[in-house]
Parts: sequence; C-alpha cells; structure tokens
Amino acid sequence: MKAITLNSFGGPDAFELRDVPRPAPGAGQVLVRVHATSINPLDYQVRRGDYRDHVPLPAITGHDVSGVVEEVGAGVTAFVPGDEVWYTPRIFDGPGSYAEYHVADESIVGKKPASLSHLEAASLTLVGGTAWEALAVRAQLRAGESILIHGGAGGVGHVAIQVAKAIGARVFTTARSEQFEFVRGLGADVVIDYRNEDHVEVVMRETAGEGVDVIFDTIGGDTLSRAPDVLAQLGRVVTIVDTAQPQNLVQAWGKNASYHFVFTRQNRGKLDELGALVERGQLRPHVGATYSLADIPLAHARLESRDSGLRGKIAIAVVPPAHADARQPRA
Amino acid sequence: MKAITLNSFGGPDAFELRDVPRPAPGAGQVLVRVHATSINPLDYQVRRGDYRDHVPLPAITGHDVSGVVEEVGAGVTAFVPGDEVWYTPRIFDGPGSYAEYHVADESIVGKKPASLSHLEAASLTLVGGTAWEALAVRAQLRAGESILIHGGAGGVGHVAIQVAKAIGARVFTTARSEQFEFVRGLGADVVIDYRNEDHVEVVMRETAGEGVDVIFDTIGGDTLSRAPDVLAQLGRVVTIVDTAQPQNLVQAWGKNASYHFVFTRQNRGKLDELGALVERGQLRPHVGATYSLADIPLAHARLESRDSGLRGKIAIAVVPPAHADARQPRA
Repeated sequence: MKAITLNSFGGPDAFELRDVPRPAPGAGQVLVRVHATSINPLDYQVRRGDYRDHVPLPAITGHDVSGVVEEVGAGVTAFVPGDEVWYTPRIFDGPGSYAEYHVADESIVGKKPASLSHLEAASLTLVGGTAWEALAVRAQLRAGESILIHGGAGGVGHVAIQVAKAIGARVFTTARSEQFEFVRGLGADVVIDYRNEDHVEVVMRETAGEGVDVIFDTIGGDTLSRAPDVLAQLGRVVTIVDTAQPQNLVQAWGKNASYHFVFTRQNRGKLDELGALVERGQLRPHVGATYSLADIPLAHARLESRDSGLRGKIAIAVVPPAHADARQPRA
Repeated sequence: MKAITLNSFGGPDAFELRDVPRPAPGAGQVLVRVHATSINPLDYQVRRGDYRDHVPLPAITGHDVSGVVEEVGAGVTAFVPGDEVWYTPRIFDGPGSYAEYHVADESIVGKKPASLSHLEAASLTLVGGTAWEALAVRAQLRAGESILIHGGAGGVGHVAIQVAKAIGARVFTTARSEQFEFVRGLGADVVIDYRNEDHVEVVMRETAGEGVDVIFDTIGGDTLSRAPDVLAQLGRVVTIVDTAQPQNLVQAWGKNASYHFVFTRQNRGKLDELGALVERGQLRPHVGATYSLADIPLAHARLESRDSGLRGKIAIAVVPPAHADARQPRA
C-alpha cells in the first residue's frame, strides 16, 4: 500500500511517499481502508521532533481516520466489513493514518456519522475529541455560562465554538478581522480582533467587569499569562498548548481559578458524543482546503504558515473523493 | 467590649487590647458572644500587611468564631438567642473575630456541632471550610483514590487527613518525624519524613510508579514545582498557598493535570458538611495550644515560629473555658 513515511525529524521534506506492506488485523482489531485523514498542529510538532523520544523512526504518522472496515480480526463484535468508521489512532503507539490502510483496536473506533463526508469526518476526530474533552469533560462548561475561546477560526477553535453553543454558553472569541464572518457563522456572540483590540478590555466591558467563566486557550504564551485578568471568580482555564513559558499563578489563586491542562487522549465515547451533536445539526467541521496523500508535505507547510486565509481544517483525500465520496467539502 | 485591634501592619506588637463599642445587629444579622476564636497563617499574613489594600486600619481581624447568639436583628429566622453557633466572618469585609462580640449575616452562620467545645469549634471553621472546599468541592476526591497532603500536621493539613479518610481515600502525607505519631493517629496511611526522604521517590515506589490522583499543597514553592513528578495521569493538584514563584507547567500538560487554586471562601453549606462529619465521629479538630484574647500577640508569634512541637491549631479562649465551657481541649 502507499504510505507517507517520516524518515528523519525536520521540515515537510522529511516525508516520503513509499510502498509499504499492508497491515493485517490481529484479535480485537479492524483493518480500515483509509478514505481521508487530516492535518493538525500536533502533526507538524511530531514531524519536527517535539516528541522525538516517543516516535521511533521511520514512522507513519497522522492522527485522524475516516474510512471503511475492510477486514475484522478474531473476536471483533462491533464492526463488520463495509462499516463506515472514524477515529483517532493511539497517540505515540503504533502507525498513524497517513496511509491507504490502518489497523486499530475496535475499542477506539466509532461509527462515522452518516451525514458527514469522509473528508469532514476525518477533519473532526482529533480536534473534536480535544474540544469535547476540554469543554465538556474538563472545564464542565454549562448552559448560561460565558467562554472566551482564543483562536476561534482554527482547527480546534472552530469546533469549540460550535460545542460551546450546543452546550448553551455565550461565546467570545479572538480572530483576525478577515475571519470574523466565518466565526460569527459558527455562532460566536462577541468577536475580538486581537490585532487591534485588547481582549481583556473587550471581555471586561462586555461582562460588566465580571469576566468569563471559562477560557479555552488554543494559542498559548501571553494568553495564558493574562487569563486571570479576564476570568470570573471560580473560573476555569483549559489549555491545549505547550505551557513551557513560566507562569506566575498568584492572580489565579486570588480568583479561586482552576487550570486544566489537556493533552490529547482518545476514546470511542467522545466520538459518540460528537456524532450525536453532528446528527442534531449542532456541529459540522469546516474543511478549508483538501490535499492528496502525496501532497501531505504541502499540506503541512500550509498549516505551519498560519495562512490567515485558512478556515477550519486541512483534509487529506487518501481515496480521491470523486470516486469514493460523492459529497464535496465546503471549501 | 474588649477587642484586639491592629493599628499598623507589622509584627505581633502591632496588636493592642482595647475597649471598643459593642456592635449591634442589623436586619438579617446576629450578635454573637464570642467564646473562642483561633489563629491561622492567614491571620499573620493579614497582620504583616500581605493584603494591605483590603484591610483598612485600625482593624479587628480574626477568621473563626464559636459562640452563643446574644441578640438577633429584624427578619432573622434561623437563630434565636442562646443558640450555639460557629462560622468564619466574611474575609476582608468588616470586623473579624478577635473580640468579645461579633455581628454576622445569618446566611454565613452555622449551628455548632454539640460534641465540640467552643475551642474545638473555633479551631475548625476556617481550616475545615478550606479543606472541604479543596478536597470535596474542587479536587472532587473520591473513594479508592490516593492523595498526597503536604504538611499533614498543620492546621489545614490535620483536618485534610481526616476529610480524605472520611471520603475513603488512601492518604500519603509529609511531616517531621516527631509528628509521625500524630498524623498516623489521624489516619494517614503513608507518612513521609520530608527532611530525610524524597517525597517523589516514596510516593512513586508506594504507588508502583502510577503516582497519586490528588495532591493537596499547604506548603508551596518546590512542592508545587514537583507536583507533576508525583501525579497520576488526569491527576488534580489543589493549592491553598501563595504561588508567586513562576511555574513551568509543561509537565502538567503531559499529565493531563488540573490545578485548582483555592483562596478562602465561606458559606454555611460547608459548615453543615463539616458538622455532619464531626457528628459521625470522622472529624475532630486538634487544639494544640490555647491562649487568652489578651495573649493573641504571643499566639501569633508561636504559629509564625513554625514550632515543630505544635500539632493542629492554636485556639483563643475569649471566654475562659473554666467558666463557659466544661470541655477541655486535647492539648
């Protein structure tokens, strides 16, 4: 089968399109024909070597699968060949999704929502699981609360806006002015042009000095340092980004704040929750661009460039959608 | 009435015993004859000026009351004169408890558990409320989990051990060797001599490399920096101490950790929860020393000295216990 392999840590040219043996499912596993995958910041962090101790080379990387079950191993009960499925492969534990076939334990695999194309489904597994874990599980965002989402036009951010609205929260988000229409369309109530406005001033004015109940940080650095300035008493901060910059937390103490650090974890339960939101029409991933398996290096370069024209996710059509998938992504 | 007033920020000699007017209860308030109060680290932090912007001078400070309702204001429904009550006065909002009488909104006042002396009850309101908030409300410690309590022989720590055991957790605590018998008697399962042992090594050995589910930090500084080294995946850290030392949180991220910062808040609900534990025999504050109202400066100096002979709390007998209170503290 074709696969994109990572042969050394470095830039996008560290990837190579190769023929490799097709894997076979063991007991409790499914073999999936990968129709689509997608690109996340985690993907280029892995590629450049941020997690080199956890990634033996050469490696097939990639963290999203949408596809069709081709074959099942002994003892598999939840799936049969032909089932459409979606999932995030185990992180740092076996091959990833940049390949024509992938093997996974059935316990981490979910049934793909029928209303999503493979490109859309593959654009949602990792970012959707992360947003759900951050907002619903860790911060326990509730109806009637307010949330500030840093980076609402991004891969995780654009899903987080929709999840927060589905929960019933009032959503503040930072974005660039050219992304305003996009994030408003997703349901954001107050949009802050972070390049020309101070987000602390805007939030404190709009909340009559109370601050927000929850902050979801997909950006990092100063956004985390300034969190206590914009947080209500007993507020919660959830961050999914590297927090190596030392933080003075004395203001967090005065606010009785909670900080939740979320590194990716995956399970079928989260996929089912996301699927239910999709089927109720409350969540739809936005595919901002589509590349082929061979063009994954270009897709990486595009995401890393922080292209302000990009909305939502970059999807990878492993099976060209004209053949496998009648639905077209909303580009 | 007699009261201890703070006339300037500084050492214990900044206090003065004075005659001041007895306060009168307004609508919804109760006037309480204070039988006992107690000393907490918060008390000397306030005295030395750590919160000077919140404490206009001269001030009556103090954060624990156990006493008897003397008079009720208009509209008070929960109390009548003669009721034994306990509570923490509002922090940074009106006079504190170092006085013969105190006025409080009935909403923050609780019925004192009958089985506690006034000295014991006054030793529990602030530290008990803090331990309950930290373990039960914020960290949501559950039966079968493990917890590391830094400083188990202290005012908050010795209550936290008992609360954690009542919840059904396995308790690790740090203490000095001369405090071992005391903390074991409170229920601690594993006691760590932090001056001669590395707490990370002990906990990781005793948990087979898993780490603890919850850390409760009453010490601060390095204990917070090292928290991720001793924390299980999805573990929670609760700290009640000043966190001004900058923290690198990248390890917390890898652990999917939550950090809860707890600054004192008070309400009647927490007092009722504590009272229930007391009545079930699962919680009893330890009064390690007792001073008179006039000797509050000495009591402050003793607590600040970190006297390793001290166990639990220092109580203040505002009404001498021989007259008001037949029970003797367990000194």
